Amino acid sequence: MKRVFNFSPGPSAMPVPVLEKAAAEMCDANGTGQSAMEMSHRSKDFKPIFEKTETLLRELMGIPGNYKVLFLQGGASLQFSMVPLNLAANGKKAVYVDTGIWAEKAAKEAAKFADVDVRASSKDRSYTYIPQAPAASSGDGYYHITLNNTIVGTRWAKVPDTTLPDTGTAAKGGAVPLVSDISSCILSEPLDVSEFGILYAGAQKNLGPAGTTVVIVREDLIGHASPKTPAMLRYDIHAEEGSMYNTPPCYGIYMIGLVLEWLKNLGGVSAIAEKNREKAGLFYQYLENSKLFYSPVEKPFRSLMNIPFIAREDDPVKRTELESRFVKEAAAGGMVNLAGHRLVGGMRASMYNAMPLEGVQALIQFMERFERSFSS
Amino acid sequence: MKRVFNFSPGPSAMPVPVLEKAAAEMCDANGTGQSAMEMSHRSKDFKPIFEKTETLLRELMGIPGNYKVLFLQGGASLQFSMVPLNLAANGKKAVYVDTGIWAEKAAKEAAKFADVDVRASSKDRSYTYIPQAPAASSGDGYYHITLNNTIVGTRWAKVPDTTLPDTGTAAKGGAVPLVSDISSCILSEPLDVSEFGILYAGAQKNLGPAGTTVVIVREDLIGHASPKTPAMLRYDIHAEEGSMYNTPPCYGIYMIGLVLEWLKNLGGVSAIAEKNREKAGLFYQYLENSKLFYSPVEKPFRSLMNIPFIAREDDPVKRTELESRFVKEAAAGGMVNLAGHRLVGGMRASMYNAMPLEGVQALIQFMERFERSFSS
Repeated sequence: MKRVFNFSPGPSAMPVPVLEKAAAEMCDANGTGQSAMEMSHRSKDFKPIFEKTETLLRELMGIPGNYKVLFLQGGASLQFSMVPLNLAANGKKAVYVDTGIWAEKAAKEAAKFADVDVRASSKDRSYTYIPQAPAASSGDGYYHITLNNTIVGTRWAKVPDTTLPDTGTAAKGGAVPLVSDISSCILSEPLDVSEFGILYAGAQKNLGPAGTTVVIVREDLIGHASPKTPAMLRYDIHAEEGSMYNTPPCYGIYMIGLVLEWLKNLGGVSAIAEKNREKAGLFYQYLENSKLFYSPVEKPFRSLMNIPFIAREDDPVKRTELESRFVKEAAAGGMVNLAGHRLVGGMRASMYNAMPLEGVQALIQFMERFERSFSS
Repeated sequence: MKRVFNFSPGPSAMPVPVLEKAAAEMCDANGTGQSAMEMSHRSKDFKPIFEKTETLLRELMGIPGNYKVLFLQGGASLQFSMVPLNLAANGKKAVYVDTGIWAEKAAKEAAKFADVDVRASSKDRSYTYIPQAPAASSGDGYYHITLNNTIVGTRWAKVPDTTLPDTGTAAKGGAVPLVSDISSCILSEPLDVSEFGILYAGAQKNLGPAGTTVVIVREDLIGHASPKTPAMLRYDIHAEEGSMYNTPPCYGIYMIGLVLEWLKNLGGVSAIAEKNREKAGLFYQYLENSKLFYSPVEKPFRSLMNIPFIAREDDPVKRTELESRFVKEAAAGGMVNLAGHRLVGGMRASMYNAMPLEGVQALIQFMERFERSFSS
């Protein structure tokens, strides 16, 4: 069996023990005589798989009891519509902070259904930092941020305080609900769920295969969709039906369960966060010392999951040549998907939970060799 | 390895050779060093998988060149919203024929966005037949049917002619677009795609794992959504982006590709249709001769895929007891998911393409034994 180190921004590498378990259970999961993908979603065979997945997610993330966990479809992109459709019926402002291409997309989509206020943006310096988050006000319905920005490689080190200044109370009820896309950082570091009203994540980075979306929503935010909202886009319907209003993506949920088991056995989120800091730390340190590559992101805002880097070459044609040679030679060496996003160029190494330290070390060694061959 | 015969209405049995191939390729598909579920959807590794799946579907279904094939998420339930949102902006009537619980759900959801006219219904006799389909008229925007009714076990033997009577032309352009949910019959029998404007199917019956939806849409029906339609619910966006507006359910698409390969190797749709007719024929014949069980469905409308049956016992308490004993004993004998839908009761054997003849024979033998034990 051949394996590569997969630095894709998502879908991306899965833990090998998880893949091996899935393969072993493909024709007969848990002695049921069926694959998890053949099980009726309402059967007694699938029920324990579904419940295990939710229980592990609640345990690993420390999700409080007053939050529902939904397993939906459509990725973060469908949440870009669902968040305003479910929260914006109150006529208040939908606040967005524009920290990258996905954050901008979320705000644009919301503007179809809500009175959107893009309260801060880092577009002026190509999204290489996280802007100061202005205070929430009593006219705000919700406050949306993108906690980790996959394309540009930034992250919020500290989430905005959305406590309402005019009420002066620090109680959660006196705060504007903070909503966040956590697709590319879920389970990578500890996160205080109680600071948020809604968290959502496409599975294809740290959770499992593409096609399942996890939505964690505080109960008081459910039930406010307008009656013209498509049924499949209503949190209340999915919450009432326990994510089984229609057939859920059963195999994706099964795979997420296996990934969560693997993560729990490793020691949970704080243990993986330590590994993630080690991996990213090594890579940023290498970039600091490199004469050929650098990180375009300002230091306090650097992502642990997605690390873009650029070649120091002023001539754009030569730079593009160098970068495409880099991506090609890395792939030949078993390190794949290192090209930057097609909208920003350059290169990017995504190192999610399933990326072993050895993968990052191999990449650094390759980059050192590449650098030497280039300067010689 | 233990295997059962899975008569679930969906998710349901997959072909064993397909599962075995998926297991073998779980850590390394096509020599790429990655699972299909780890591949970036825009990578050169995933591209041939995606293209193979679409090409095989086009070939097996004979999809004409002026139809787009979309691989989406959200199941048939999301199509219940997408069809009216994409077609109903013209102010014409959205015609529905109510042939069961899913058809009714489709019409109810459409009524949020369109002027729905439920033109015929078989609810008067518990959906045990397909009603006469009244003619289309020039005020109709589209005409929706559910080709196979999973819960009640009926199917349209001949689709309605939606040629406009007032124009008198048989040309396709002179017809109201026929739209159909084919979730539970796709690829089970030959189907003339050119008779339809839109066909849609959740994958979890005849195609692959739950979480992928196939939509086949005639090009002239794309591009009519109102600007307030959520981006993920617009056919035009998905068509322009080749189903990659956001991350598609890559592993589901891979599995569908394996299922289509398997089907092609078997001889394609006409070959599987022959097997399906043989399986259903045997089972209906058994029911005809049974003293204990009968089919509630009128003969000309009986489904090949989903066969409900009821015990001949007038006392409802005794009947429920008998039926639950039946379902339990069948499961103990390795034939699972034979309970009828929770809304209609009774029993139901779903026998999709992946159900082997041996499974149906085993079920009949079990039923004969059960019948004898019961009457003795």
